[in-house]
Amino acid sequence: MEKVPRPVIRRLAVYLRCLSNLEEKGVQVVSSKQLASMLQIKDSQVRKDLSYFGNLGQRGSGYDVKKLSQKLREVLGLYKTWSVIILGAGNIGKALANHKRLEQNNFKIVAVFDSDKQKIGRQIAPGLKVRNVAELEQFIKENGADIAVLAVPAAVANELACRLEKAGIKGIVCFAPTTLQCKIPVEYVDITVFFKTLAHTIVNSSYNI
Amino acid sequence: MEKVPRPVIRRLAVYLRCLSNLEEKGVQVVSSKQLASMLQIKDSQVRKDLSYFGNLGQRGSGYDVKKLSQKLREVLGLYKTWSVIILGAGNIGKALANHKRLEQNNFKIVAVFDSDKQKIGRQIAPGLKVRNVAELEQFIKENGADIAVLAVPAAVANELACRLEKAGIKGIVCFAPTTLQCKIPVEYVDITVFFKTLAHTIVNSSYNI
Repeated sequence: MEKVPRPVIRRLAVYLRCLSNLEEKGVQVVSSKQLASMLQIKDSQVRKDLSYFGNLGQRGSGYDVKKLSQKLREVLGLYKTWSVIILGAGNIGKALANHKRLEQNNFKIVAVFDSDKQKIGRQIAPGLKVRNVAELEQFIKENGADIAVLAVPAAVANELACRLEKAGIKGIVCFAPTTLQCKIPVEYVDITVFFKTLAHTIVNSSYNI
Repeated sequence: MEKVPRPVIRRLAVYLRCLSNLEEKGVQVVSSKQLASMLQIKDSQVRKDLSYFGNLGQRGSGYDVKKLSQKLREVLGLYKTWSVIILGAGNIGKALANHKRLEQNNFKIVAVFDSDKQKIGRQIAPGLKVRNVAELEQFIKENGADIAVLAVPAAVANELACRLEKAGIKGIVCFAPTTLQCKIPVEYVDITVFFKTLAHTIVNSSYNI
């Protein structure tokens, strides 16, 4: 399979969300036009994105919702449950630990760590007590974990990324505003980017400010 | 100016973050190669992205950090302070209300609303008490607001989006997993997309799972 550009992968994840909504409603077939309108993009873009993965639809009759959904799950690596640990029990860590849609999408939060003694031992979400980050390696060794979330200040993110890499974590979702110096895959989340993109759209659209 | 694709705009926001870090360190000139390595992308991509906005660098001598930073701020509409209201005082609303980097980037949270009587009146962040969503229109009329964040369940998101549009809000950042039926610009944030993209990278990289 040829290498799929990251913006395409991001859209696949959104298609999948739309398909799940359709499946829940009992819809069996969807056109590229319908998918496009749900994402507010062009239908030619939808067809181009999905063409990376072979011939998934029939000309004129649209895509089978269930089959397409299955294929996208496979492409995105969602056929297994990913165990996730969160580093940082602040507001972002707490929001993630309680984010039901993560588990619904096969990302299971198995532990939350912090270095703050005020936070260690506290219940942060149903079934999740904050652990001491000193026990990080021990926990991973005993329980295993696939993905780590860095919801910590930028100043300590790199040191923790090194520890995670050494401990065998396979990838990091990083909320800290910094670039990590590690070799495992990292997905950066910068919430301000969404606000900036929106600001750009507002000032460049016909809407007056 | 020709229409700039959204993935480019997203990267501009990330370039800006890198430039701010460099400015703080007193760095005056940056090459496309340095910027590229901070984003883990190709330097040709950086040059292509920035070429949308005229000739910002000199061949061989890189970009002036201050000037480029200023230009990107202008392009992104960050020359003014955007006032932001948050709808939903749950975990996500709370994390955003306390997210210092929003205000540092000229997005000022001016109010938080909820319909839950248990939450109304509570202090959610320094200087921010949760208001009754019934007072939404009144607040916007009296204080003005540019951007609204929907951190509410999908089931009520659309109804609120309509109210926001009527009340004169210019754009929405939507954390609810749904597509809004409004005409103002919307930026959708789906945290699970970052996890899915990472999962894809992990299963498709040489790293074993």
